[in-house]
Amino acid sequence: MPSYTAPLDDMLFLFEKLRDNKNYNELEKYNEVNLDLAKDILEEAAKINQNLLLPLALAGDENPAKLENGVVRTPPGYKEAYNKYIEDGWISLSCDPKYGGQGMPKTISAFFDEMLSSTSLSFKLYSELTIGAYNCLLHHASDETKDKYLPKMVEGKWSGTMCLTEPVCGTDLGMLKTKAEEQADGTFKISGQKIFITSGDHDLTENIIHLVIARATDSPKGTKGISLFLVPKFIVNEDGSTGTRNGVSTGSVEHKMGIKGSATCVLNFDEATGYLIGTKNRGLNQMFTMMNLERILVGIQGLGISEIAYQNSLAYAKERKQGKTNNTKSTNGADFIIEHADIRKSLLNMKSIIEGERALCFWLSQQTEVSLNHPNEKVKKEASDYVSLMTPVVKSLFTDLAMEITSDAMQIHGGYGFTKDQGIEQLYRDNRITPIYEGTNSVQAADLVSRKLLNKNGNIIGKFLEMIKEETNSKNEKVKIFTKQLNYYLDILSKFTDWIIDKNKIDKDDVSSAANDYLKTLGYVSLAYSWIKILEVSFKDLDSNKKFYIDKINTAQFYFEKILPRAEYHYKSAISGSSNIMKFNFN
Amino acid sequence: MPSYTAPLDDMLFLFEKLRDNKNYNELEKYNEVNLDLAKDILEEAAKINQNLLLPLALAGDENPAKLENGVVRTPPGYKEAYNKYIEDGWISLSCDPKYGGQGMPKTISAFFDEMLSSTSLSFKLYSELTIGAYNCLLHHASDETKDKYLPKMVEGKWSGTMCLTEPVCGTDLGMLKTKAEEQADGTFKISGQKIFITSGDHDLTENIIHLVIARATDSPKGTKGISLFLVPKFIVNEDGSTGTRNGVSTGSVEHKMGIKGSATCVLNFDEATGYLIGTKNRGLNQMFTMMNLERILVGIQGLGISEIAYQNSLAYAKERKQGKTNNTKSTNGADFIIEHADIRKSLLNMKSIIEGERALCFWLSQQTEVSLNHPNEKVKKEASDYVSLMTPVVKSLFTDLAMEITSDAMQIHGGYGFTKDQGIEQLYRDNRITPIYEGTNSVQAADLVSRKLLNKNGNIIGKFLEMIKEETNSKNEKVKIFTKQLNYYLDILSKFTDWIIDKNKIDKDDVSSAANDYLKTLGYVSLAYSWIKILEVSFKDLDSNKKFYIDKINTAQFYFEKILPRAEYHYKSAISGSSNIMKFNFN
Repeated sequence: MPSYTAPLDDMLFLFEKLRDNKNYNELEKYNEVNLDLAKDILEEAAKINQNLLLPLALAGDENPAKLENGVVRTPPGYKEAYNKYIEDGWISLSCDPKYGGQGMPKTISAFFDEMLSSTSLSFKLYSELTIGAYNCLLHHASDETKDKYLPKMVEGKWSGTMCLTEPVCGTDLGMLKTKAEEQADGTFKISGQKIFITSGDHDLTENIIHLVIARATDSPKGTKGISLFLVPKFIVNEDGSTGTRNGVSTGSVEHKMGIKGSATCVLNFDEATGYLIGTKNRGLNQMFTMMNLERILVGIQGLGISEIAYQNSLAYAKERKQGKTNNTKSTNGADFIIEHADIRKSLLNMKSIIEGERALCFWLSQQTEVSLNHPNEKVKKEASDYVSLMTPVVKSLFTDLAMEITSDAMQIHGGYGFTKDQGIEQLYRDNRITPIYEGTNSVQAADLVSRKLLNKNGNIIGKFLEMIKEETNSKNEKVKIFTKQLNYYLDILSKFTDWIIDKNKIDKDDVSSAANDYLKTLGYVSLAYSWIKILEVSFKDLDSNKKFYIDKINTAQFYFEKILPRAEYHYKSAISGSSNIMKFNFN
Repeated sequence: MPSYTAPLDDMLFLFEKLRDNKNYNELEKYNEVNLDLAKDILEEAAKINQNLLLPLALAGDENPAKLENGVVRTPPGYKEAYNKYIEDGWISLSCDPKYGGQGMPKTISAFFDEMLSSTSLSFKLYSELTIGAYNCLLHHASDETKDKYLPKMVEGKWSGTMCLTEPVCGTDLGMLKTKAEEQADGTFKISGQKIFITSGDHDLTENIIHLVIARATDSPKGTKGISLFLVPKFIVNEDGSTGTRNGVSTGSVEHKMGIKGSATCVLNFDEATGYLIGTKNRGLNQMFTMMNLERILVGIQGLGISEIAYQNSLAYAKERKQGKTNNTKSTNGADFIIEHADIRKSLLNMKSIIEGERALCFWLSQQTEVSLNHPNEKVKKEASDYVSLMTPVVKSLFTDLAMEITSDAMQIHGGYGFTKDQGIEQLYRDNRITPIYEGTNSVQAADLVSRKLLNKNGNIIGKFLEMIKEETNSKNEKVKIFTKQLNYYLDILSKFTDWIIDKNKIDKDDVSSAANDYLKTLGYVSLAYSWIKILEVSFKDLDSNKKFYIDKINTAQFYFEKILPRAEYHYKSAISGSSNIMKFNFN
């Protein structure tokens, strides 16, 4: 079983040194969350993750969630751990105090999400979708509905799902067939089949609140006829108690390559009672409130799994001896593999990606908070634009790089990486869902190039690039060396952006075929931007924590020298266009 | 379950149009294998793969090989299939007729190996190592030993293994502990533990011939004290019948992420009777005869798995509808995903890699034949140098790219790629061993840069680059457009090579940390070289088979525009050196 120690040093470094941000600082609500409080919370979070949750990963892999007599059973130990988890209030960390939550900002909860992803993604998913459903209801449901459902969800006694996918449609929800028939009392009867529903059924909570998209019988075809419904597993009585079983049943639980502890269900809705949430026919937009936050969380899943893969690779490299290094001092026998240049390179590759991602994510958490809570609408909108720009990047880049990192971790472990003994192959399998669910990484890239660069508020990407230039315009000569490199790639990104914007007018297939490359280029530059901010602090505060900051500077240097050049390949490969691709005859 | 149709068109194209090679043409023995014979054999090979072997993949994954009361049981159906397989003589395809083989050149058998890798890698492994052991004995054993063991192995009644790895050593065999004590009769008593032994035990054959490396009690430490021994599971009597059980037993069968149908064993040797093969203390060199051919086969495994992943992605893309394309003609409902630019790009990415690899592999098969059978020692040596140069490239590049391709296949299948239904995730898991076994891909890269570029016979890489330049110096204006691009990357490769050779003298850590990048650069350029040869034929013979050759030209164009630029990234990333990596403090 892999071991895990929460990377508190790095998290608290970000919280202490990179939190200063004009707009974020203006959020009164969060001024009270100071470094001491952050430290207390994260230390406790580390404990529950390291002690209680880490063993659940293996338990879930060896005893997958299963359907027995119509009931989904979670793996051994999940129920006990879940009870402790909600008892200690962890599920409500980021929720509104009005509904019983602890009101912590995403700058804290994102770190906690990372820890959960490191220790057991399957276990995490049972509460992650609850928070997704909570957010969706918080923004779109009536006060009455919120009062009725949210407290129990925030308490963790009830869980939530998001029911989108059907056998014929995942990416393309306009094709959905689940129908909603309005009743005399204003409720709806929901009928249809939903597939790939994470935590669609399980034995951890007293009730499950399904958020289901369906088409009302009098709604138009396509995406404009989709509405959002709340469909509880058990009908909730007026007094808040759970009543009769609703018409939703579990058809099957998927057999998957990874995250086996998570119950991925086929749900059959058979005239189930549903309650319309928000405006009719606006269901897809409402669901996307939830989807966007969820997509960032999937990126964080990739980060969390990368971190535990790195920690275990590092530990193994320090204890495994094999071969002599180029400058061996050993006269007899092998050296530790951590002394070998290519193993060191592989470890630094992981470290430089992980720490860059964590810093980018911290910045994105701040922007998310500003986008949700800033009093000035213009500031709020600008932050919201940044969040929407970075959502597909974080989702796709972090999950793809987590495949690279978990794969490299297997290579470092050699044959032991491929067998079940060390648990490394499980990290690789578990992470493999992250580039697929919540919209495949190609769907994210398409979303980025077609909807996120420009919108009715203007040139989002242009503003983002301006912001990077301003924030990285260091006066420190040592930082300038790095900024100069960044500027080379910023220039490439600008040219690439212009190319995309031009081609969007004249040949959309060129854009579609370049989308993944563009996302990667933007992503690598964004990580470099985060590294510049880390470097600024590292050079300034060097003497206060020499070992820590020298590590940071060396890790940054690795990123700039070895990884950032990938951005240029993506650009060169992409701009050759798509005519050859589109004319190819696959028959 | 994935479907599979052997790519006979492409194989026969290579055999017909790319077989003309001066040195190869001089091999009298193989002049008799003409196109008609190749066609007959490959058509039969396709049938047994498509009909008999393909279903074994799923059977093996669902019912892994297991140890029961000391005996390893193969998955259901393996025994029946194996009997049919050896009855029809497939195992002996490339073996010497002197021992009952069919004497087919590698230009044929490599295609068959590819097909087997596509249909069931786990099943293939039960005979692959037999051929490895056969080759090792053929080159190093006495005539008496060969006469005693080879006919039964060629017949498939006995199988073979290669026992190298031990708990403390995989990469670094100098540390091995298995000992060999010489007896009065000239035999040895072998004692020790070997791990990760593919087909170490099973129920398919009457006997298993283990080739074991061990240290004689009077041999020196390190790699110079390793000898090679033949250790049969059952002692073979003078008359060739199988006698008493030898002192080798199966400790356990590994639980692995993939190739579950293959029995990966821990073997315990307890004073087992062993027979010295070849010269004492030269065991490692002798084993490497087997290892090199085996490493090429692992590359071909990657190619085979890539092919079946591509075929199934293509079929799925033609039947799955999702979303509207940029230029949709559909007025209602979605388009087939094969109409989407990014799916098409992903499919062409696969196709251009696969067909380039198959062509490179065909050239390598010819070189291997020349290296084994050419009457002129100088020609033979030169071919042998090319084979040794390309062995790590084919092993590593093909297996890494097979991970890219099986991963992209999962993405094309979306959620269905991650569940067990379509069998795509199994291809991804099965292939994941290929970058690890027979020496991890990093070990291959280290081998390439430290031993394969230059040797006592001179500048191998220099000759190879010269050969590429000569063979791609086309007079066809249309080919010249591609050659010009190739030359740009050849220039990069030359500079990279000079850098490696220089650094090998002054800073070996720079070389070690750049090794994987160098291997990739050489690999991508080598694939481009293969594509140029295909293009030469395609433009020349265009009118004779228009659809086929236009596909080839478009696929080549994709390779040059979208994939080959990766070579430059690897160069740029690598030459920043290793000082930062080596000084990093991981404690």
